[in-house]
Amino acid sequence: MKRSTMKKENISQAVIRRLPRYYRHLNDLLSNNIRRISSKELSRSIGFTASQIRQDFNHFGEFGQTGYGYNVEDLIQEIGEIIGLNRDYKVAIVGAGHLGTALANYQNFQNMGFVVKGIYDIDEAKIGDHISGIEIQSMDEFVSDVRKKKIDIVYLCTNKNGVQQAVSIIEESNINAIFNFCPVDLKVKEGIVVENINLVDNLLALSYYMKTSHKQ
Amino acid sequence: MKRSTMKKENISQAVIRRLPRYYRHLNDLLSNNIRRISSKELSRSIGFTASQIRQDFNHFGEFGQTGYGYNVEDLIQEIGEIIGLNRDYKVAIVGAGHLGTALANYQNFQNMGFVVKGIYDIDEAKIGDHISGIEIQSMDEFVSDVRKKKIDIVYLCTNKNGVQQAVSIIEESNINAIFNFCPVDLKVKEGIVVENINLVDNLLALSYYMKTSHKQ
Repeated sequence: MKRSTMKKENISQAVIRRLPRYYRHLNDLLSNNIRRISSKELSRSIGFTASQIRQDFNHFGEFGQTGYGYNVEDLIQEIGEIIGLNRDYKVAIVGAGHLGTALANYQNFQNMGFVVKGIYDIDEAKIGDHISGIEIQSMDEFVSDVRKKKIDIVYLCTNKNGVQQAVSIIEESNINAIFNFCPVDLKVKEGIVVENINLVDNLLALSYYMKTSHKQ
Repeated sequence: MKRSTMKKENISQAVIRRLPRYYRHLNDLLSNNIRRISSKELSRSIGFTASQIRQDFNHFGEFGQTGYGYNVEDLIQEIGEIIGLNRDYKVAIVGAGHLGTALANYQNFQNMGFVVKGIYDIDEAKIGDHISGIEIQSMDEFVSDVRKKKIDIVYLCTNKNGVQQAVSIIEESNINAIFNFCPVDLKVKEGIVVENINLVDNLLALSYYMKTSHKQ
């Protein structure tokens, strides 16, 4: 889809954060057999304003026709391509605790093409056990094993104390993407992209909103 | 701490989202025995600009003294109070799958005063099992049980298909806060605050950034 190549470079952070939501929502629409939708209808169902939606979609090219709406399948295809979902990703999980186990079993990631191929821990009691059919390996084997398996992404699920050691080992490998579930602000070498999930921060925000809503 | 009461009302969304990060970071400093810090030093360690930090802290009252810095313990106390951490919260988990199990065992939440008191599921095969010492109960018992236990917050961990039914049951109870881990945009009745964790959206954002960083 060459039509949008020139425009892709200028996408702002805010638009990038909305892309997954569009992608998810449009897939839901398609699975309900909705193949064409106006920005007004989409606004009602997704909760962004219609003008916001038109502006966002203008970044990717010309999709809407006045009085006709957007082709849902075309949008999914194009947004998926922008996000990088036109391929599968091989995942390594570092830290085989409860959270690592939950992520290894999380179907919503697998369904998007993120497939867990290796699980690693430093705890000798866990090494050799299996999670979701995958054997837990020692972190000593990490660098050579992820190279062999062509791993793209690490889900980082160690505890706080183990995280810096784990990052040092990951930096020795060729992996350049970390999905970080450890509640620390990671420092990684240049060239590695990090997406931080800090559940504690979100829970504390919820606590604030609860308190504020009680007051009203 | 009456000094800041008047100012609290005007705190913006952006500041609220930074509060948990300050809270976490200042606690780390205190555990390293740092009891006083300038906005410049704090800027280096937390990654916000010094002027941003001074502006944020001005929302809560007068903490800094020129050439003297901020008292770390005072800040923790005040930010904790604003967030609502001057009390404990009782939590119910709805959905006893892998993610619900991980959250029931997540020490970082317990340490902040969020204590799991009940776990509920609709799957009869799971009811009666224990997670982290807590018996899984039927959703049929949810409304009466959470009232008895004075539950404050639900961690919502059902699958996508079960989520709307679960929300209907939660709405029948007195609970007014949902920490939502299900990848749907929840519709809840007025008066219930929702904090959405959409891990799929974050993973897709990471995928986008990986692709963009490869190109450079």
